[in-house]
Amino acid sequence: MSQFFGDMTPLTFNPDADGPAFRHYNPEEVVLGKKMKDHLRFAVAYWHSFAWPGGDPFGGQTFDRPWFGETMEGARLKAEVAFEMFQILGAPYFCFHDADIRPEGADFAESRRNFEEIIDIFGEKMSQTGVGLLWGTANLFSHRRFMSGAATNPDPDVFAWSAATVKTCLDATHKLGGENYVLWGGREGYETLLNTDMGAELDHMGRFLSMVVDYKHKIGFKGTILIEPKPQEPTKHQYDYDVATVYSNLQRFGLEKEVKLNIEQGHAILAGHSFEHELALARELGVLGSIDMNRNDYQSGWDTDQFPNNVPEVALAYYEILKAGGFETGGTNFDSKLRRQSLDPSDLIEAHAGAMDVCARGLKAAAKMLEDDALEAERRARYAGWETPEAQAMLGSDLESITERVLAEGINPEPRSGRQEKLENIVNRYV
Amino acid sequence: MSQFFGDMTPLTFNPDADGPAFRHYNPEEVVLGKKMKDHLRFAVAYWHSFAWPGGDPFGGQTFDRPWFGETMEGARLKAEVAFEMFQILGAPYFCFHDADIRPEGADFAESRRNFEEIIDIFGEKMSQTGVGLLWGTANLFSHRRFMSGAATNPDPDVFAWSAATVKTCLDATHKLGGENYVLWGGREGYETLLNTDMGAELDHMGRFLSMVVDYKHKIGFKGTILIEPKPQEPTKHQYDYDVATVYSNLQRFGLEKEVKLNIEQGHAILAGHSFEHELALARELGVLGSIDMNRNDYQSGWDTDQFPNNVPEVALAYYEILKAGGFETGGTNFDSKLRRQSLDPSDLIEAHAGAMDVCARGLKAAAKMLEDDALEAERRARYAGWETPEAQAMLGSDLESITERVLAEGINPEPRSGRQEKLENIVNRYV
Amino acid sequence: MSQFFGDMTPLTFNPDADGPAFRHYNPEEVVLGKKMKDHLRFAVAYWHSFAWPGGDPFGGQTFDRPWFGETMEGARLKAEVAFEMFQILGAPYFCFHDADIRPEGADFAESRRNFEEIIDIFGEKMSQTGVGLLWGTANLFSHRRFMSGAATNPDPDVFAWSAATVKTCLDATHKLGGENYVLWGGREGYETLLNTDMGAELDHMGRFLSMVVDYKHKIGFKGTILIEPKPQEPTKHQYDYDVATVYSNLQRFGLEKEVKLNIEQGHAILAGHSFEHELALARELGVLGSIDMNRNDYQSGWDTDQFPNNVPEVALAYYEILKAGGFETGGTNFDSKLRRQSLDPSDLIEAHAGAMDVCARGLKAAAKMLEDDALEAERRARYAGWETPEAQAMLGSDLESITERVLAEGINPEPRSGRQEKLENIVNRYV
Amino acid sequence: MSQFFGDMTPLTFNPDADGPAFRHYNPEEVVLGKKMKDHLRFAVAYWHSFAWPGGDPFGGQTFDRPWFGETMEGARLKAEVAFEMFQILGAPYFCFHDADIRPEGADFAESRRNFEEIIDIFGEKMSQTGVGLLWGTANLFSHRRFMSGAATNPDPDVFAWSAATVKTCLDATHKLGGENYVLWGGREGYETLLNTDMGAELDHMGRFLSMVVDYKHKIGFKGTILIEPKPQEPTKHQYDYDVATVYSNLQRFGLEKEVKLNIEQGHAILAGHSFEHELALARELGVLGSIDMNRNDYQSGWDTDQFPNNVPEVALAYYEILKAGGFETGGTNFDSKLRRQSLDPSDLIEAHAGAMDVCARGLKAAAKMLEDDALEAERRARYAGWETPEAQAMLGSDLESITERVLAEGINPEPRSGRQEKLENIVNRYV
Ligand SMILES: [Co+2]
Ligand SMILES: [Co+2]
Ligand SMILES: [Co+2]
Ligand SMILES: [Co+2]
Ligand SMILES: [Co+2]
Ligand SMILES: [Co+2]
Ligand SMILES: [Co+2]
Ligand SMILES: [Co+2]
Repeated sequence: MSQFFGDMTPLTFNPDADGPAFRHYNPEEVVLGKKMKDHLRFAVAYWHSFAWPGGDPFGGQTFDRPWFGETMEGARLKAEVAFEMFQILGAPYFCFHDADIRPEGADFAESRRNFEEIIDIFGEKMSQTGVGLLWGTANLFSHRRFMSGAATNPDPDVFAWSAATVKTCLDATHKLGGENYVLWGGREGYETLLNTDMGAELDHMGRFLSMVVDYKHKIGFKGTILIEPKPQEPTKHQYDYDVATVYSNLQRFGLEKEVKLNIEQGHAILAGHSFEHELALARELGVLGSIDMNRNDYQSGWDTDQFPNNVPEVALAYYEILKAGGFETGGTNFDSKLRRQSLDPSDLIEAHAGAMDVCARGLKAAAKMLEDDALEAERRARYAGWETPEAQAMLGSDLESITERVLAEGINPEPRSGRQEKLENIVNRYV
Repeated sequence: MSQFFGDMTPLTFNPDADGPAFRHYNPEEVVLGKKMKDHLRFAVAYWHSFAWPGGDPFGGQTFDRPWFGETMEGARLKAEVAFEMFQILGAPYFCFHDADIRPEGADFAESRRNFEEIIDIFGEKMSQTGVGLLWGTANLFSHRRFMSGAATNPDPDVFAWSAATVKTCLDATHKLGGENYVLWGGREGYETLLNTDMGAELDHMGRFLSMVVDYKHKIGFKGTILIEPKPQEPTKHQYDYDVATVYSNLQRFGLEKEVKLNIEQGHAILAGHSFEHELALARELGVLGSIDMNRNDYQSGWDTDQFPNNVPEVALAYYEILKAGGFETGGTNFDSKLRRQSLDPSDLIEAHAGAMDVCARGLKAAAKMLEDDALEAERRARYAGWETPEAQAMLGSDLESITERVLAEGINPEPRSGRQEKLENIVNRYV
Repeated sequence: MSQFFGDMTPLTFNPDADGPAFRHYNPEEVVLGKKMKDHLRFAVAYWHSFAWPGGDPFGGQTFDRPWFGETMEGARLKAEVAFEMFQILGAPYFCFHDADIRPEGADFAESRRNFEEIIDIFGEKMSQTGVGLLWGTANLFSHRRFMSGAATNPDPDVFAWSAATVKTCLDATHKLGGENYVLWGGREGYETLLNTDMGAELDHMGRFLSMVVDYKHKIGFKGTILIEPKPQEPTKHQYDYDVATVYSNLQRFGLEKEVKLNIEQGHAILAGHSFEHELALARELGVLGSIDMNRNDYQSGWDTDQFPNNVPEVALAYYEILKAGGFETGGTNFDSKLRRQSLDPSDLIEAHAGAMDVCARGLKAAAKMLEDDALEAERRARYAGWETPEAQAMLGSDLESITERVLAEGINPEPRSGRQEKLENIVNRYV
Repeated sequence: MSQFFGDMTPLTFNPDADGPAFRHYNPEEVVLGKKMKDHLRFAVAYWHSFAWPGGDPFGGQTFDRPWFGETMEGARLKAEVAFEMFQILGAPYFCFHDADIRPEGADFAESRRNFEEIIDIFGEKMSQTGVGLLWGTANLFSHRRFMSGAATNPDPDVFAWSAATVKTCLDATHKLGGENYVLWGGREGYETLLNTDMGAELDHMGRFLSMVVDYKHKIGFKGTILIEPKPQEPTKHQYDYDVATVYSNLQRFGLEKEVKLNIEQGHAILAGHSFEHELALARELGVLGSIDMNRNDYQSGWDTDQFPNNVPEVALAYYEILKAGGFETGGTNFDSKLRRQSLDPSDLIEAHAGAMDVCARGLKAAAKMLEDDALEAERRARYAGWETPEAQAMLGSDLESITERVLAEGINPEPRSGRQEKLENIVNRYV
């Protein structure tokens, strides 16, 4: 035991607790025929929780963690503490990038050796604790070699480095029984169009993604390949802007059946959407994979990656997920970082526990709304006109025959109330 | 003559003029082997210039035009004045919606009769003046029947009405020799997901668009079908959010070879992009059709539809268009309205003349940058590494062989300067 | 009885109701020693509920109300229906502009006669029903005469017209026993700096406001003069941008003891703040007067004026108000409009009833947090260092003596956790 | 000579140059009776140009400078290179924070010793080169001790540390003959209201500022104390939000005659304003001090601090400054950083030279507009009505007498065109 968390014991479900506990998240409680833990499939993000130093664009490190510094010893201690926290939280999953678990080496080979040593430690700890890997991913944006992109870099050697890195991370994810593999193209985009060949970059990005899919099949990885959309930051424009854009790219590359999406609330907001919009659209397109349940501050124009705290909003998100039939390989990752002033180990626990409770409340509200058919009955009624044979026939016809019918029947439609406020009231009876 | 514009005579190119004149737009001047007028292909928007009363969400009509009021007499006077203005400006084209040229009738048939009478007047005036129709379109958003959408309305009768309306407008556009037909889905979207069946609505939208394309072919219309993206406003979300989203939809509907885009600066801004981004992306996707060259105020979160006034920005837009080979059927439409305090007829002339000059300056700067290879030489140099056989071979290979090469060759890429400031300086030598 | 609302009877508090009812708002329930109705002091906005036709920048009227049209008969019917709704809702207050209660006359005198006739009707109805006037105000932005501002118009005649209008409205508010008088400077600002003399306009605005305050005292009006900040829309910039800006102006005009603020959630958002920020700042400055409890959509860059629906957010707003000691003359006005697709009379009732419940839930949560000292104990602990005599002495000293002490004592402060996530969890135990 | 810039020689004014040169900035050229260099008073920012490593929230250092690392040797080399660059650019001024010129020491005393050693080096180099100090400032935001603010920190020891630091920096600025001293309250604000005592923090901030002003007078510093407004980032809310907010605070603290403002384009944008708005408002309030002429990207919701590149925008900014009579102690600081991909020494030169040219073009255009009375004549005509004795008398009267006059004279104002488009065209004839 590392003693980082002192004598803290695993949190339990205890609505009347005074200290840290789950007041709403009850892992074994059955909701819509499934245990809450199997609905929510929580994962802790290794990078924000254990590798982020607390810096921002105007200030450096605030956190003081005994494992900081780029050494293997630090990396082992970090893994120790991480799995302790997973157990305190009862988190069934975690997620990692290569760069947050191992020190950077002098070259590719050394970085890979460092990485693989930690992966082996992970394997042991996962066996011992029962914690699973929701997804692995490669960090292709922090090191200066990626400053102009990874797969979309003007330098083909960076493409090569990136390809080798993804292979390594996908191998590790496969080895650890990971359920998904995520690609976030942090610098696949541009700072200025003036120096950018967008057509070439998009082609290279497509080719890269195809290689990843091919390799997944080659090694028999059964998990899902996921892309995480984000519109901008650090770049001025990222090619995986939002769900619609990623789907457009997937169609161009012929990969829309191979790749799904990992959708983050904060990125939805940055792209000018609501989270539920992005989830609903992904569901309709058949590419809803997994979520990063971390909010942005509506007031801040950058990615604040905060733990979720607004139950009504979270309820609408899970509503879309439940309508999609729930997660398959996906889950609820907290791609969230502590505020940089939240210095203490207990802040890490508070933050995750509070977020898990918020998600549990949202899930239960969403499930009940669905069970009661509270919203869906209204929705069906609104579109009922389309169920008639005449309406369906019209859809199969053409402009001329429709025009004739408009004239012949003197069609002159009267609008009907959309009842938005009433529907919002209905939601408020559940949250 | 209507006397609306007093004794104003057609504007001429006269850099030293004191009063209204073109100081930069010289229609016959040859730029990159083509006359400026044939590059720019200016069009006046009928709706903003002649039908908009000057209202905003907090106030009503400010303009006082003798043709206001929903009468055929007014509609005829409006047409009179419009063509007078086209001639004062030397505008080669105009654009219209059905609703801005004719009074609404009691039913579909009467509205259509009104519309067709004005279309005949347009036909005559076009013959007399040589003014052409850049595009026609249907207004499927202003009347209350469209409050919940047109093709995506929950009521199939609204779909029918909309289909009949588009047929009518496409027929008219064809009759007048229009070069394009535009669809702007002003209310194809939603106010709240709570009452929306997004999947059904997208399907109906796709079916509608296919009918339009089929009908175009049936009647032999040789112009281009264009969709105008806009992310939101009046709705909370519009399905034609931006270039990438429209292209995604087109691929789903199998129409990406049939339909191109009409891209507006203001809508690009609202979607979180730059105008040049949207143009470059459309070019790379092969769907760059036409432009609405009206800016939004960066400070205002809604569609201000102002006349362009910033030459450096306009230059970057035409640069992307020139790189695409220039307009084919498309052109430069001013989907711009006067500020509501700009009450006088002379303001209409000032606004258009100033905008045409700004575009002329932008075009000339862009053309010279291309001619000098000023930016393109830098861009090619930046991506030169991809021209090698090794790089091309890598693109055709797979993760494993690339990884082997990274290890074998000890690939360890060093970043090179992106030179953004230098490139911005280069642009500033032209604008 | 007008029959507009059919046979709808006054809503009652009934948590188990199936249809329209209050599930949380229980007017007589005592919270922190005061009845809920006396805490919340709900008011219905006349303009949005009864005068707004449902238009937006891309479409016209959707609502179909029997009183529409600029006639006195319509105005009387509108008053009839309005007071029926106040009684159905049990709303203790309403608010009005002159322009939404009477038809515009041919000149100032006729408009005033129309206005005063309706004011007399209001007086009778208020006596009969016990409904009070939270505030009156003048609409100095809708008519075209105000297109360039009211008090800040380049034309002194518009200043004069505006002054006469405010006098009329203040007289009426006084006569009806109104508790406040509000000024919202809808067009006191500019569209472009190029034609604006900002210094002169600010001076005129200050002089105008002083006249209003002087007149209030002259007639013995005991209510509060309130300014409602808004940063922009319809203008590019409004001089009453936000709480800080209004307070700056008040200080310049020497009116900071005479005028308080009416703060709207939607306008707080547009200005880049949270609602609770604006409330807290106004409280600290001693100018917190009243609130407009209508939200904006975070996704839309304009003033959507929607009914509140997010309890956690509303709770944080009432928390700041309770910390200020609650409302004195102020109250909770819904400056909210139905969505333009919400066509039916029942939508008006649903919207208000839902909003009143959301406010009741927010109030109760806020009151309990205060009662439990849940947040305040943490806050006091964080600033406890400032309670020492040394710290207070330092505040009264100077840079030199402080520097000496830093050197002498080797002061080298260590940061302590800000505990944001824990505090957010605390809030979530109450909402 | 450090050889960092190779054999680069000072840039000259040479419109026809091929390589780096000034094409528009001609320091000795007289504009409106004053040399360009005396109008513009350019300053280089030490921090961005020499201390910033190229990091962003998703990646670390990209620049590779021989002086990096927290050593005195590095600090001395950095100073060497900095003054070489000032001479290459012919920059008359520079600006610094304590933290970017010296390594952090183990305690306050050691940091001060390091600082003062470099200040002495600066003094020598300034004598040798003739480069002046536009302003000094203290960095009270980067070190973790400032994570919760400086003057507004919950810990009084941080207040003390900050006071001692400002004393030190003000002493140094005085010693070097600096013309201004700037305070930017990077973390004077909050991350969450939940843990913040806004009233106490504002009081402490006011007291701190008063101590600074008192100390300035005590030591006989004749320069101007400047506050730099910024609305947010790194915090969620900064107390010096914008010009209006700072002016409000200054009035509360009784310091509005003692303190002026340093206004940055990027911060104006973040606060929802235009740069020219902030400048015009500061001018009207009598607190326009100095500018940071670095732009933000309109598309990015954070402070991008880019070199200016849009002449029309820069022209409007200098127009407001010229209307204020030009700079007194203030000047044009570039608080700009290279894009993090701009790795090379030559990029530093290109960036500054391009920015200086853009400013020169803007200044010349603004001066000519003023000289020609092109905009001002229109503005005066628009407000001419206020020059009459009747209008002035009305301003001195009251609501009742104005109302009587409106009725007696039948005042019924007709709006007149605001001519925005025409005025924009006028500007475009100059830029
Ligand atoms: Co994020
Ligand atoms: Co994420
Ligand atoms: Co538009
Ligand atoms: Co348009
Ligand atoms: Co509002
Ligand atoms: Co309001
Ligand atoms: Co900045
Ligand atoms: Co600055």
